[in-house]
Amino acid sequence: MTLEQAIAKMNELQAAQQAYNHAMGVLSLDGDTAAPSASARGRGETMGYLSGVTYKLLVNDEVKEALETILQNKDAATPLQARQAELLKEDYDDTTRIPMDEYVAYSTLITNANAVWHEAKQKDDYASFAPYLEQIIDYNRRFASYKDQHKPAYDVLLDGYEKGASTATLDPFFALMREKLTPIILEVAQKPAPDCSFLEQRFPIHDQRIFSDRLMQMMGIPRDRCAIAETEHPFTTNFNKWDVRITTNYAETDVADSMYSVIHEGGHALYELGTADEIQFTCLASGASMGLHESQSRFYENLIGRSLPFCRALLPVMQECFPDQMKGVTAEGLYAAVNRSQPSLIRTQADELTYPLHIAIRYEMEKRMIAGDVKVGELPALWNQMYLDYLGVTVPNNREGILQDVHWAGGMIGYFPSYALGSAYGVQMLHALEKDFDPWCDVEKGDLSRITAWLGDKIHRHGRMLTPPQLLRSAIGQDFDPSCYTAYLTKKFADLYKL
Amino acid sequence: MTLEQAIAKMNELQAAQQAYNHAMGVLSLDGDTAAPSASARGRGETMGYLSGVTYKLLVNDEVKEALETILQNKDAATPLQARQAELLKEDYDDTTRIPMDEYVAYSTLITNANAVWHEAKQKDDYASFAPYLEQIIDYNRRFASYKDQHKPAYDVLLDGYEKGASTATLDPFFALMREKLTPIILEVAQKPAPDCSFLEQRFPIHDQRIFSDRLMQMMGIPRDRCAIAETEHPFTTNFNKWDVRITTNYAETDVADSMYSVIHEGGHALYELGTADEIQFTCLASGASMGLHESQSRFYENLIGRSLPFCRALLPVMQECFPDQMKGVTAEGLYAAVNRSQPSLIRTQADELTYPLHIAIRYEMEKRMIAGDVKVGELPALWNQMYLDYLGVTVPNNREGILQDVHWAGGMIGYFPSYALGSAYGVQMLHALEKDFDPWCDVEKGDLSRITAWLGDKIHRHGRMLTPPQLLRSAIGQDFDPSCYTAYLTKKFADLYKL
Repeated sequence: MTLEQAIAKMNELQAAQQAYNHAMGVLSLDGDTAAPSASARGRGETMGYLSGVTYKLLVNDEVKEALETILQNKDAATPLQARQAELLKEDYDDTTRIPMDEYVAYSTLITNANAVWHEAKQKDDYASFAPYLEQIIDYNRRFASYKDQHKPAYDVLLDGYEKGASTATLDPFFALMREKLTPIILEVAQKPAPDCSFLEQRFPIHDQRIFSDRLMQMMGIPRDRCAIAETEHPFTTNFNKWDVRITTNYAETDVADSMYSVIHEGGHALYELGTADEIQFTCLASGASMGLHESQSRFYENLIGRSLPFCRALLPVMQECFPDQMKGVTAEGLYAAVNRSQPSLIRTQADELTYPLHIAIRYEMEKRMIAGDVKVGELPALWNQMYLDYLGVTVPNNREGILQDVHWAGGMIGYFPSYALGSAYGVQMLHALEKDFDPWCDVEKGDLSRITAWLGDKIHRHGRMLTPPQLLRSAIGQDFDPSCYTAYLTKKFADLYKL
Repeated sequence: MTLEQAIAKMNELQAAQQAYNHAMGVLSLDGDTAAPSASARGRGETMGYLSGVTYKLLVNDEVKEALETILQNKDAATPLQARQAELLKEDYDDTTRIPMDEYVAYSTLITNANAVWHEAKQKDDYASFAPYLEQIIDYNRRFASYKDQHKPAYDVLLDGYEKGASTATLDPFFALMREKLTPIILEVAQKPAPDCSFLEQRFPIHDQRIFSDRLMQMMGIPRDRCAIAETEHPFTTNFNKWDVRITTNYAETDVADSMYSVIHEGGHALYELGTADEIQFTCLASGASMGLHESQSRFYENLIGRSLPFCRALLPVMQECFPDQMKGVTAEGLYAAVNRSQPSLIRTQADELTYPLHIAIRYEMEKRMIAGDVKVGELPALWNQMYLDYLGVTVPNNREGILQDVHWAGGMIGYFPSYALGSAYGVQMLHALEKDFDPWCDVEKGDLSRITAWLGDKIHRHGRMLTPPQLLRSAIGQDFDPSCYTAYLTKKFADLYKL
């Protein structure tokens, strides 16, 4: 196979993958937003069929030969082609190293585990879920060994979600979080809570929908390329830079809930909307990693969206959309309310300050689960003990404890740390940006265009051209430094709570 | 190839076709309902790719051999298998008899013609659309000759949309429509128009959405298998009997518009929802023809939905959803209003009585277009003359004249007659049903379940097992008789307008 033939084959593969990913992505989105409930069966048939086709598209000798040909002649290929071959070969290796029968058995297990978890959570019945979790842990450990039997299994899993992540960097990261944040969290708990009652009035969903449009407008999200829908859990999905979707969920008596969902998902969307034209319809057209993606969503949600200047810009918009509810509220009052910090049970509802400790608990648990030094039956007790140790919170039941997250039921062990990493990356990006210009005047005017242009140039446009550590270094000119994150949180909450 | 192998191959083909049709159907629906405007480009790429795959799925020697093997051994196959092979072979022949390069050129022409038509309609500029229409006519004439060079081209096209339809039956059908309906239309025009003003007040779209749910409930549409969305033009699409979608379009000052769209599309939906379990995920799982489909939608919309008993059931529901607007309205007043008849310009807004003549005009024009005895430049004048002759209406411009329908721009010549045929089929079905039981007590109570069960048994469950004429004969026990349709219309409007 000549290099030219290999590149043609690779392009053909990517065009096909894009088409199938697009189709399956829309089927899935439709299932979450518009499809009637009984449609699941037909969708299952279709998804199963198309998954089989995409498997065969990638896993065949011709593709293997093409990718190897390009990788052996990297210098003769363009940098984009070389990187595409690299990522596709990683994907090929990941897919082929697991024996087909194990892969199928694992897929079935996950489907069943998910259904069991849903019911277990509802009924607060950990025992029914435990055998599934045990098998999921076993499979993940085994799959990690197929990938690299010389590295600790949990390191392999971490690297699978966030290239370059390992316990060597995450152990000190989470230790630092605990060391620096625990004292502040304890101090904040002694202070009077800010008034949040005005955010908990009745906000008709019809008005919240209009408010979402205004928020997306403030964020500079081009609506001809990005639509919003409603789902139980908010998410972002993208097909190409001309077609990105975010979703939110409206609670009538909690306007901040959807508001920060829209800003968070809007951050994910801006990343995808900002990928370069020349990488569209290839495997490079997407965020660099989960962590980098979270860095963008949390950048907009917390660093910008929960700042005082943004609250100043937000208040008149809220007062326009909700005149009765927001009457008499000040920007400072809004700022205090959206930053109320309080140790709590549920990760997804945690504030910016306590959030990293929720992740630290999951990280610690996953490490022990994969190491095999704790039995599955003992996990709830361990969870509850850690919530008490890390956050001073007593867990009343498993529903609000170990059963709260979908991740483990979905087979995702090693995924949680990227949430905290993303937040930490974001703070370093903000510092780098502030060296180039002062963003806060713009933010106060509700104009995020210069900020998005800066992130677009440093992060968004590159897609998956660089590995996460490469991209971070190229964007901020330095390596990962978690102390920036703890320093940021310490200062923000010391100011807010006058510590 | 053994029969067993052939059947396995055919089943494999159908499973694949179902998956691709489902995926492409959802992509298209998403494009019409939820996708951002700039998404068209990426969707075009994906649809193009998947169309190519589905072409190759069907058009290959192995499929040909399999289908021929089954057709040669029909008696050894089950009736379902034999019918599947028959329909798939028809599809295979239709697809392969057109040379690939002509097919591609025609697809491109249609895509362009559609865009040009949109603009031409907006700008009332027939001249810009004319060269496209000319080519479309030429292609259709040529494609018809590829299919059967011994039959008149227009007969071939008619048969393509409605198996068994031909000028031999449609010429007398439309002649009868003109002969019987024109005098009534003229008489009605002399009578005072009923009061419709209460339907043209402000009906907030939010309330209309709730009303749509109530209408679907009245129709007995199972919502776990059928969802509703909003599009510019209402339509129905189905993926299998567990996943059917209808759409509507809300006009704030015209509540009847969306109301009858929901009932019409609901009729299409009930057809698809009622197909038998054992034909799902095969090529049989769909309505028998366009005409049969319209027979169902117009059955619910006109025969039931515009009847006095249904208005009696509808009124309290409308009064619940729109108490201010519907105050003091009587069932008789509602019945008169939703049946106002008036010769008009636009087919899609025509009433039940004048509608067939709109179709008659298109039928006559298509016949001449395909025969080639009228130049494309002369078509608007012919259109306008026929509107004057058939309906006594003066066409002020081409936008509201020859450019009003999308069909010809979409390459659909020979499609219109199925609308009128469907209405006529429906009346014969109603007569047959009335021989089995009196439906009107049920209708007055808002209970359509016995009616839907009857249609389900006679029509819906069969899917494409029978040809349209076979199905009609099996359902009503007699052949097609258009005089039932004219008699029904004559009686209804004579009563309504006291002629």
